Amino acid sequence: MRVIVPFAAETPKTRLAEVLEGEERAAFASAMLDDVIAAIRGAGREPEVLSTAPIDVDAAVTVDDRRLTPAVNATIESSDGPLAVVMADLALATAGALRRLFETDGGVVIAPGRGAGTNALVVRAPDFRVDYHGTSFLDHRRGANAVGADVAIVDSYRLATDVDTRADLVEVLVHGDGRAREWLEDAGFELAVERGRVGLRRR
Amino acid sequence: MRVIVPFAAETPKTRLAEVLEGEERAAFASAMLDDVIAAIRGAGREPEVLSTAPIDVDAAVTVDDRRLTPAVNATIESSDGPLAVVMADLALATAGALRRLFETDGGVVIAPGRGAGTNALVVRAPDFRVDYHGTSFLDHRRGANAVGADVAIVDSYRLATDVDTRADLVEVLVHGDGRAREWLEDAGFELAVERGRVGLRRR
Repeated sequence: MRVIVPFAAETPKTRLAEVLEGEERAAFASAMLDDVIAAIRGAGREPEVLSTAPIDVDAAVTVDDRRLTPAVNATIESSDGPLAVVMADLALATAGALRRLFETDGGVVIAPGRGAGTNALVVRAPDFRVDYHGTSFLDHRRGANAVGADVAIVDSYRLATDVDTRADLVEVLVHGDGRAREWLEDAGFELAVERGRVGLRRR
Repeated sequence: MRVIVPFAAETPKTRLAEVLEGEERAAFASAMLDDVIAAIRGAGREPEVLSTAPIDVDAAVTVDDRRLTPAVNATIESSDGPLAVVMADLALATAGALRRLFETDGGVVIAPGRGAGTNALVVRAPDFRVDYHGTSFLDHRRGANAVGADVAIVDSYRLATDVDTRADLVEVLVHGDGRAREWLEDAGFELAVERGRVGLRRR
């Protein structure tokens, strides 16, 4: 099974602009990508990064400057056999969680993300196409049905947590154990509890 | 194994005040409780509701007007044998996800929630005590270590999703299939996609 990791090299993590400057966002995104690559290798697969621009990373990189949906669909079209697509910002992904994804039977296997998103996919139905816009989880389920593929859902908090916002950084500090967490700690981020609720503070 | 479902009968779901009025919040909280009870029964266990006040629900109810932490600890202290504690607002909980929780080995088994929370627990170590304030996931892990109990974590998005805020209602509409989802739909809530992001709209 090929395992593709799409990566937006040019405008990484814009929703983190509230807490991180441009170069910091790029460095943090790169740390998350490293963690995802390590987790995929831990699950016994070799990742291929599908990047919008050349990047320096310890994995094979294909550059495709199109948007996420057409770039991933082109990869599906050109692939023989099963293909997995794992988002680059799943900083909590572990080998165990990914193994569960890769080993789940189904024509289309979906690990949903918050907000009706799709954080990771296995595509074994060659006619299936992705559409990451909007309610992609619902759309992918429908799309799989439309091509006669059976759908399986992987119930994983680690795979459901894509790191987009300030609140998501809390999850990395609590549950992460790789470079992304280390990067945040080195940058001075720590948990802050206020009136029983857990937030984020930067030293 | 006893399965306890703590329920705050008097001030349910105050963080939903932005979208639901007082009586609506009570009705929605009650629908979520019904879903949790059904999921526990689906997993082959009989739930006991631990409520801050008398409520009308199809399950055994114990009234204890103390706060969550002392009420749950009193239950742990008075129990012989393993005890599970499942939050009443896990509207996405399914029998399958709960079975995974109940069947995971460990002195203390934790299903974490967003924001360093603890959404469900199995306690087999009699000396373990809960503390739901603040970073309860981290505190429970530490507390289990302190009493020599081995800790296991259950990686479930369904169990990680406690329904507290407006954004959480999106999750119920996308992934729920019980009374809570039905209640939201009857109350006129639906998904709304704006610039690729998924939100909530009320008719």
